[in-house]
Amino acid sequence: LNAGQGCAIWVNGEPRPDDLAHVSAHDRGFTLADGLFETMRVREGRVFRLEHHLARLAGGLLALHISMPARIREWVLGAVDAAGLPDASVRLTVTRGVGSSGLAPVACRPTVVIAIGPLPAFPPAIYESGLTAHVASGRRNERAMTVGLKTLAYVDAVAGLLEAQRVGADEALFLDTDGHCSEATASNLFVWTGSLLLTPPVSCGALPGITRATVLELASGLGLDASDRPFSLEQVLEAQEAFLTSSLRGLAPLVRIGGRPIGAGSPGTVTRRLASAYAALVQRECGS
Amino acid sequence: LNAGQGCAIWVNGEPRPDDLAHVSAHDRGFTLADGLFETMRVREGRVFRLEHHLARLAGGLLALHISMPARIREWVLGAVDAAGLPDASVRLTVTRGVGSSGLAPVACRPTVVIAIGPLPAFPPAIYESGLTAHVASGRRNERAMTVGLKTLAYVDAVAGLLEAQRVGADEALFLDTDGHCSEATASNLFVWTGSLLLTPPVSCGALPGITRATVLELASGLGLDASDRPFSLEQVLEAQEAFLTSSLRGLAPLVRIGGRPIGAGSPGTVTRRLASAYAALVQRECGS
Repeated sequence: LNAGQGCAIWVNGEPRPDDLAHVSAHDRGFTLADGLFETMRVREGRVFRLEHHLARLAGGLLALHISMPARIREWVLGAVDAAGLPDASVRLTVTRGVGSSGLAPVACRPTVVIAIGPLPAFPPAIYESGLTAHVASGRRNERAMTVGLKTLAYVDAVAGLLEAQRVGADEALFLDTDGHCSEATASNLFVWTGSLLLTPPVSCGALPGITRATVLELASGLGLDASDRPFSLEQVLEAQEAFLTSSLRGLAPLVRIGGRPIGAGSPGTVTRRLASAYAALVQRECGS
Repeated sequence: LNAGQGCAIWVNGEPRPDDLAHVSAHDRGFTLADGLFETMRVREGRVFRLEHHLARLAGGLLALHISMPARIREWVLGAVDAAGLPDASVRLTVTRGVGSSGLAPVACRPTVVIAIGPLPAFPPAIYESGLTAHVASGRRNERAMTVGLKTLAYVDAVAGLLEAQRVGADEALFLDTDGHCSEATASNLFVWTGSLLLTPPVSCGALPGITRATVLELASGLGLDASDRPFSLEQVLEAQEAFLTSSLRGLAPLVRIGGRPIGAGSPGTVTRRLASAYAALVQRECGS
């Protein structure tokens, strides 16, 4: 394990001890954010919805004209086995590879980095009291070249999170350039209106999250009307409940935005029902 | 010199041979594009407008709450001296540094990478016949958290360039989300209307380029009316001349967009006058 970061690292399928856990300074992932990643949850030693993550990655690589590394599934499974952590996070990064100067890629071979570490210890308050959000001063670009792709370009999200933390909020909520709700810094947004479960569509700059898709699936199973369609910040503030979804944090209630409460300002019952159903599904799909 | 990439690499002020020209796989520059860079031109062994580049970098680091490495000027000058190339390109990258998983930075120390290589050999046709551009299908976000900062997040520009190359164009021209002209993939846009030299403002998503500022300065010196203000794609197509500016390529005429000629469809006299004035200025400021 990489003691410094608490993570084990594999580069192009090879385990790397701490002092070799590095990538070329010419890697286009480093110089141009020219690559994609997936963050996945390991439960009982198995990756939850690995095939969904690999399918999303393959689609993104195709869009960016980066070839999908042939042995990537084998490398992920081998790394997860070798790490031997029952509950873990896996970050899979694929870049276009080492390049010369300039934006035009010339004869690149993809770089694959797998980092496996213990699941971050989220404060229980996240789930018990819920998260607060600040509305980011900058907007998500729903008409970007790479909209819907989980590229390495997260610096805007980092800037949004730092802005949120400066005003004492846990998260930043991004609107798109039309003023519709888009997503949080690294999680999707859901609202429960009392009769409908809504999440922003990719056309509002939202990432097509794996947890997001799973929650939409679970909602139908629970008989809830669910849909991805555009909605405004005002609609969130008038909603009964809201929550954020991501692979590691799962479902986290969102209880205030810009100081204003959503519903009762505390985690709601639909959020709790979906969070339980999600936990049970992860257990069922990963359990032995 | 790094034979593989034709570049010499320094990390945090230390020269690195090829087999050590790397950064941590946990560096937030690699995992999140959480950093900034400058690309600079060396002429007669001196960096053109180093102070302007360092000032822009310092402003960007401040905005991202990354501390400016104290010895950065000394490191750049030392690396340029050691590389010993009279005509060269310098890429200076500063990231937030090595981080644990998650977006929130915890106790990071910046990583500084300096890469010095020979000036790319641009085809003479770029200057003699001019460049062609494709209008990118995606838009620049003039309301992004990091607008105006030269962050590592260039994957959208890469996607735009690949799209342009697929339709046989040299460059991609980005509009902002309001439909105003913004910039090309890694260069600023200028148009000459016959009476006015125009370039998009930062409020249209343009980077405040160092060459852009230098050209605005030179234009006043030549008695040309020059201004940064919003304009449309139609206005470019009605202009007499257009050109793109960047630190390495200098001024490159832009003669067609989406197959339609700008002015006569060949490099114009105002472009040539400004390009000559720019070359003379670089020579004057860097020459011994």
